[in-house]
Amino acid sequence: MPRQDKPVRTDIGWSDAGSITLFGKDFPSEILGTLNLGDMGFLELTARVPNARESRMFNAMVVTLVEHGITPSALVARLTYLGAPESLQGAVAAGLSGLGTVFVGSIEGSARMLAEAMPTPERQADMTPLAEGIVAAFQSPPRPIPGIGHPVHKPIDPRTLRLFQIARETGFDGPYLRLIQSVSEAAARRSGKQLPVNATGAIGALCCEMGFDWKICRGLGVMARAVGLVGHILEESRRPMATEIWQSIEARATEHFREPGSSSGPSE
Amino acid sequence: MPRQDKPVRTDIGWSDAGSITLFGKDFPSEILGTLNLGDMGFLELTARVPNARESRMFNAMVVTLVEHGITPSALVARLTYLGAPESLQGAVAAGLSGLGTVFVGSIEGSARMLAEAMPTPERQADMTPLAEGIVAAFQSPPRPIPGIGHPVHKPIDPRTLRLFQIARETGFDGPYLRLIQSVSEAAARRSGKQLPVNATGAIGALCCEMGFDWKICRGLGVMARAVGLVGHILEESRRPMATEIWQSIEARATEHFREPGSSSGPSE
Amino acid sequence: MPRQDKPVRTDIGWSDAGSITLFGKDFPSEILGTLNLGDMGFLELTARVPNARESRMFNAMVVTLVEHGITPSALVARLTYLGAPESLQGAVAAGLSGLGTVFVGSIEGSARMLAEAMPTPERQADMTPLAEGIVAAFQSPPRPIPGIGHPVHKPIDPRTLRLFQIARETGFDGPYLRLIQSVSEAAARRSGKQLPVNATGAIGALCCEMGFDWKICRGLGVMARAVGLVGHILEESRRPMATEIWQSIEARATEHFREPGSSSGPSE
Amino acid sequence: MPRQDKPVRTDIGWSDAGSITLFGKDFPSEILGTLNLGDMGFLELTARVPNARESRMFNAMVVTLVEHGITPSALVARLTYLGAPESLQGAVAAGLSGLGTVFVGSIEGSARMLAEAMPTPERQADMTPLAEGIVAAFQSPPRPIPGIGHPVHKPIDPRTLRLFQIARETGFDGPYLRLIQSVSEAAARRSGKQLPVNATGAIGALCCEMGFDWKICRGLGVMARAVGLVGHILEESRRPMATEIWQSIEARATEHFREPGSSSGPSE
Repeated sequence: MPRQDKPVRTDIGWSDAGSITLFGKDFPSEILGTLNLGDMGFLELTARVPNARESRMFNAMVVTLVEHGITPSALVARLTYLGAPESLQGAVAAGLSGLGTVFVGSIEGSARMLAEAMPTPERQADMTPLAEGIVAAFQSPPRPIPGIGHPVHKPIDPRTLRLFQIARETGFDGPYLRLIQSVSEAAARRSGKQLPVNATGAIGALCCEMGFDWKICRGLGVMARAVGLVGHILEESRRPMATEIWQSIEARATEHFREPGSSSGPSE
Repeated sequence: MPRQDKPVRTDIGWSDAGSITLFGKDFPSEILGTLNLGDMGFLELTARVPNARESRMFNAMVVTLVEHGITPSALVARLTYLGAPESLQGAVAAGLSGLGTVFVGSIEGSARMLAEAMPTPERQADMTPLAEGIVAAFQSPPRPIPGIGHPVHKPIDPRTLRLFQIARETGFDGPYLRLIQSVSEAAARRSGKQLPVNATGAIGALCCEMGFDWKICRGLGVMARAVGLVGHILEESRRPMATEIWQSIEARATEHFREPGSSSGPSE
Repeated sequence: MPRQDKPVRTDIGWSDAGSITLFGKDFPSEILGTLNLGDMGFLELTARVPNARESRMFNAMVVTLVEHGITPSALVARLTYLGAPESLQGAVAAGLSGLGTVFVGSIEGSARMLAEAMPTPERQADMTPLAEGIVAAFQSPPRPIPGIGHPVHKPIDPRTLRLFQIARETGFDGPYLRLIQSVSEAAARRSGKQLPVNATGAIGALCCEMGFDWKICRGLGVMARAVGLVGHILEESRRPMATEIWQSIEARATEHFREPGSSSGPSE
Repeated sequence: MPRQDKPVRTDIGWSDAGSITLFGKDFPSEILGTLNLGDMGFLELTARVPNARESRMFNAMVVTLVEHGITPSALVARLTYLGAPESLQGAVAAGLSGLGTVFVGSIEGSARMLAEAMPTPERQADMTPLAEGIVAAFQSPPRPIPGIGHPVHKPIDPRTLRLFQIARETGFDGPYLRLIQSVSEAAARRSGKQLPVNATGAIGALCCEMGFDWKICRGLGVMARAVGLVGHILEESRRPMATEIWQSIEARATEHFREPGSSSGPSE
């Protein structure tokens, strides 16, 4: 008896000779020329076209995540491009592979933390006890609170300031923004350190305001960073740094093996 | 004698405690809340903010590439997510890895073909002989002309029609668009088949109109598809198809090994 | 004040004009022609050359993980190769990206489970209560026990049988093998189902016998599967299935959109 | 009319409840405990078990490619692991993504060069004119000859010396080894420089001796390097360098932006 196929189904879209339908819209006439790239990301996540307020807020969220300068993921893309310049997609893919729990994953972490503390948005909630409960939970065992604190941007992360301003202008300054702000304050009180809401924390809270499942929030960082990595590969193609990174790190890391005065060098 | 470091340099940006500068702009005040995600891609590729015409055209180009339904790259992202649901970035990275010469690479192929045939845009050029030269070059040995022809969208690709319309509205309907249209016509004359300018061909020509180096044109497809793959992973998390794909293909591919009536199945 | 570099150091190896040293050995004379590829993996994980017993056992462990036929990761490699045949490394990389918590990660899961239950090997330990404690821990909330049970290989996984036999022949049939066997029995008693030690469970236990940190055990699966994926790409290049996978799944997944009798099809 | 499935087929293997068959062999009894990991790679590439000579030669070829110290691909794996330590497979996948035309691809390049110059092995051929033809072809336009020359290992690559010795011992010192040696000599005569056959050149020639299609030769490097990258991730987990790489390169690359005396730093 042959195996019976089980149903597989996509609701994203399909096409025939003359038409292309995506999320129930006629792609050429209703999407193309109307939506920008961020709107398209919103459409992928919600299956509907954003209104003007949503478009402005969502685009600001993803734009924040595009470019963070010389990050590990940018270095990875550049070093990969050195070995496989014919495969731009491979360099971007390699760069994205490190967007895990440590860096971009903190969007997901903060969205999850907020959504679990307040499963539905409550405008009237008293945020202070909720925030103190969150901070206490991250004390045992002591772990960094996702979205809180920044090694450089102190006492305030200028991106958070601006994202919160746009949230006020677009009506997304709801209870999750107040909650993460309270978490930042509670954490600072407890530790005596400056612990601002950082950009990924602000975006995690805004994901909650927009109703996104925390499980997909890392996706905002992934889609955004793909844009930025293309820029790094373009700069690398014009002003390369990968060979020098490789050779200078190789020299530093193997110096203990070498006789003083010897000459040698890296080889792939 | 220790190794002397050579200079490494990025001009993309940097930050300190209170400021973030990208491409010479103050990121929070001049970019965030002002540019959309597609504009940010334009900024990465040109180091300048697009004007309104450029913004509309560039966003249309990348939006075209976000979502093509159940493609090999979408299947790859879904099958990867099945094994590593904790690593959304890995599923997107895997999906992007196949955007090589066969599919999205045709943007690069058509941009290169046009840029090599007409290194600087010439509004007065007679496109017919240029186009016939291109088509002839792809005859020996016979190869597909990048950006020309489509297995489904015939006699016309509806995305091309719309992209060309937006190009007219924004002033990007220049000589490269006329040249690829002529290539399509010359190829159809020679082969007797319907060979429309497809979406990647239109985008390759528009990349030339915008002055992008052909070497980076594949990057438009890569940044766009990252957005779409996040949508596929979201759908996969809600309505999975990866296990059924695996098991039904496994059954079909190993049927020749099996005794009629035997029961067995796939195992990872 | 310029930034002070901090030390970076590798102990893996280095080379100069006439010599190559890896893990303290002269590579050409002491490794090349002497060690096989599995031995080289052992050397990478332990910084020493395996003896004959270790070589046999470790090679059997990784050989078990090379080839599992038409798996999700093999499908991913094949579908990626379809779009980027010029980038064999990208197809393998994509295929490896799905070796996460669900499939190959169960090596890590079972090694961790055993190492946490018995941090140092105790030949005299009574395994039954230890095993029952493990099984109980996986009841609340109910989760699959890593390395236990198999959808196809019942009542016994033939790879486990053979790995345990080789373990006896090489002296690696120690307390961790007894413990995982006890876990299998305890789980079967509690559930009334056949729950054999599967191949990844056997390998997780053998990793404990060899003293590997559980954090690196997934690495055995990753190095092994890279070998197998090259074989799938070779077969794909000679007898392709990727286009048919794509088109048949696309047809099934979009059937609900189509009018009866319409003709259409997939397009990238 | 519904779409008709086309056949898909694998000949690699399949399994049922009690048996696992790979390449026509009973996996538990005929492969496991008998073949080493390199033999398994040979089996994947040829669908047959290597004899003792083939096993020794093939294992030496892949062992040569496992570990080259601090290479770009090792740096990529380490930098990726920094951001996603939960995803070892993603770090290896990222590291493999750069094994393109520039580094490991030269195996493929040299195998192709030799196979095209001498499509079937001719023991009696006069290698000098063949070699001079090859060298001349790489003069216009001038390009590096794949597998010839090395930045560090001069005047001879010690791995080549050893691989050629093993080839003599195993009977693989055939016409392709003589041809690449002649290419090295012809290139040195023409340029006046030391241009030894490097390790990837030796392996490319040995791939021809073994009858491998040049299109799959990059696969030897990919399977081997996966083994080495696991070792780098293990070392990174114990003695990390990724954060220092990131921060020192960031400081060097953005120094031109900074005021003397300012303090700032990297942020992801």
